[in-house]
Amino acid sequence: MPQFSPDSLHTFTQALLVSRGMSAADAQTVADSLSWADRSGVASHGIAFLPRYIDFIAHGDLDPRAQPEVISQPPGPWVIDAHRAAGSVAMRFAVDTAFGALRDAPTVMIWIRRMTHSGAMGQYVEDAVRQGMIAIAWTAGQPLMAYHGTGRAAATTGPLVMAAPGPEGEPVVLDMATTDVSNGRLRQARRLGKTLPPDTVLDAQGAPTTDPNEAVTPLPLSGPKGAGIALMFEMMTSLVAGNPITGPFIHAKDRPRHGQNAMLMLARISAFGELSAGYPAHASELVNTLKSMPRAQGADEVLLPGERRARARARTQTRGVVDVNDQVWTELTQLAGAAGVALPLSPP
Amino acid sequence: MPQFSPDSLHTFTQALLVSRGMSAADAQTVADSLSWADRSGVASHGIAFLPRYIDFIAHGDLDPRAQPEVISQPPGPWVIDAHRAAGSVAMRFAVDTAFGALRDAPTVMIWIRRMTHSGAMGQYVEDAVRQGMIAIAWTAGQPLMAYHGTGRAAATTGPLVMAAPGPEGEPVVLDMATTDVSNGRLRQARRLGKTLPPDTVLDAQGAPTTDPNEAVTPLPLSGPKGAGIALMFEMMTSLVAGNPITGPFIHAKDRPRHGQNAMLMLARISAFGELSAGYPAHASELVNTLKSMPRAQGADEVLLPGERRARARARTQTRGVVDVNDQVWTELTQLAGAAGVALPLSPP
Repeated sequence: MPQFSPDSLHTFTQALLVSRGMSAADAQTVADSLSWADRSGVASHGIAFLPRYIDFIAHGDLDPRAQPEVISQPPGPWVIDAHRAAGSVAMRFAVDTAFGALRDAPTVMIWIRRMTHSGAMGQYVEDAVRQGMIAIAWTAGQPLMAYHGTGRAAATTGPLVMAAPGPEGEPVVLDMATTDVSNGRLRQARRLGKTLPPDTVLDAQGAPTTDPNEAVTPLPLSGPKGAGIALMFEMMTSLVAGNPITGPFIHAKDRPRHGQNAMLMLARISAFGELSAGYPAHASELVNTLKSMPRAQGADEVLLPGERRARARARTQTRGVVDVNDQVWTELTQLAGAAGVALPLSPP
Repeated sequence: MPQFSPDSLHTFTQALLVSRGMSAADAQTVADSLSWADRSGVASHGIAFLPRYIDFIAHGDLDPRAQPEVISQPPGPWVIDAHRAAGSVAMRFAVDTAFGALRDAPTVMIWIRRMTHSGAMGQYVEDAVRQGMIAIAWTAGQPLMAYHGTGRAAATTGPLVMAAPGPEGEPVVLDMATTDVSNGRLRQARRLGKTLPPDTVLDAQGAPTTDPNEAVTPLPLSGPKGAGIALMFEMMTSLVAGNPITGPFIHAKDRPRHGQNAMLMLARISAFGELSAGYPAHASELVNTLKSMPRAQGADEVLLPGERRARARARTQTRGVVDVNDQVWTELTQLAGAAGVALPLSPP
């Protein structure tokens, strides 16, 4: 597998997006998002996704020149229309909008309609948490997983993000799909010929399988529970903000249009005054309690949501490089050639 | 198993609570909550819980005379202190408070601190959904399930509630614990000697077991995901509102104090104006699409969140009675005798 410095991949990502009509600033925002995922060990949402972004632009699903716009605000609800801008551009705009709103109110709920693939959703709330907020966010995107009982894809995989300051104010960030087996894990199982856990995926006929090469449709986590969360994401976000995704996707005759809607909620902890004065001490006590408890059989340690990703980022910083898999590298080489953009150089 | 009319159980519940110092109005609210669960086929949250409520009162965990109070409101965050009132009294007060807040704003987030057992949480948002709102709610209660990696109980089981209007405006209400196997299902498995699904519970030593008689600690659904949701409930609710539950419970030397905190978020769909004008049609289309899709192998039908409970209520109305299990009946008989309250009569 070729290896590259995060900086060189970032420069390349930005240049390729600029070659497709995106402004330097927006291309930087998207490159930041992909780089964050690669550095965090979430390769599925890193530069591996760049060829799909280029494809979304080619099909008109992603408008590289679009600018998100606030189309409703108090006294109405906060609603942003992303006008098909890149998901990371829309989410950064939503966070900025939320920060503005939090100057006048202690809590804010924002709907974001007509954006595109969000990238690794957890990253957008980290700054807010560092500044003393709690955050909830999710996306309602294309139905890639079964709804409980259906034999084909019929529900969004989210993700659901919940985040709050932990010890030392460091963000604790849950960022979870509504499936048990992620698409990234499915692809990896295919590459390695690894058997999948039982009751996590269906084959093309809607029957459960553990064979990664027969696996087509991930099942929702815990059956009706994961399915229910996904359905509520679509109803609360896509239907409320007037941009349904699940129904039109399932009924599409040709290539279904790519798109996502999202939700962002923030609350400023300090607004709770004396009630929240003990928050830092209580958060440390809670985490220390969990980490020092007797372990389940076979468990090495007790981890917080996002702790694995934070460790991966520290490791990347030490190593100075991230891996890019061969297939992704081949695709990027072709895209670079077609666009006349210089490829990133592998360190010697 | 003895059977009773819902009305006779309701009357008995109210009388027993009044005998312990609760006002008739508040006792009616609690009786409504338990009755709703029994009629919905959720016996674990029905009259079977009444002996525990009486026990909470005896230990001073539940103050039958306490009245919930708004202790913070705009320009600050909405916070209710329940002062240890019954959970259903606190949640009904929270919903009323939210309705008031929604006269001035299209969305509202409310923290509820120091309440007691919520009862079946889904019921409190049904009226709001019938009046055109979407709702999110959860409780952060006693740690009854393992946190991913711990061998003992260390995280709340929620529940998480998400609700929105479905076809004909009927509420679609997801009301889910953060475990795969509920405590009710665990008790039932013990009664029937039924093997539990693998990797859903731990024994006293923190090892996985499928033997219901060895089962002590339910595991979080989907491992780190269910655990992460539960941890975030505690951080976002209990720590922000200054009433930690998980840490003090784990460290308690004697009988740990019972208590819960909760969160309620509502948004009025009509506030989205033209954006949400298509909501009723889109909701019907979405549900019809899911229900008419090819089935997974072995699946009879595709159900919406809450659909099973709604069917149980319709069935109860036809039958005119609910079952009370023998052990619960024995406990209720003793409590009734001690309080001098007339027992409900079984229909002939």
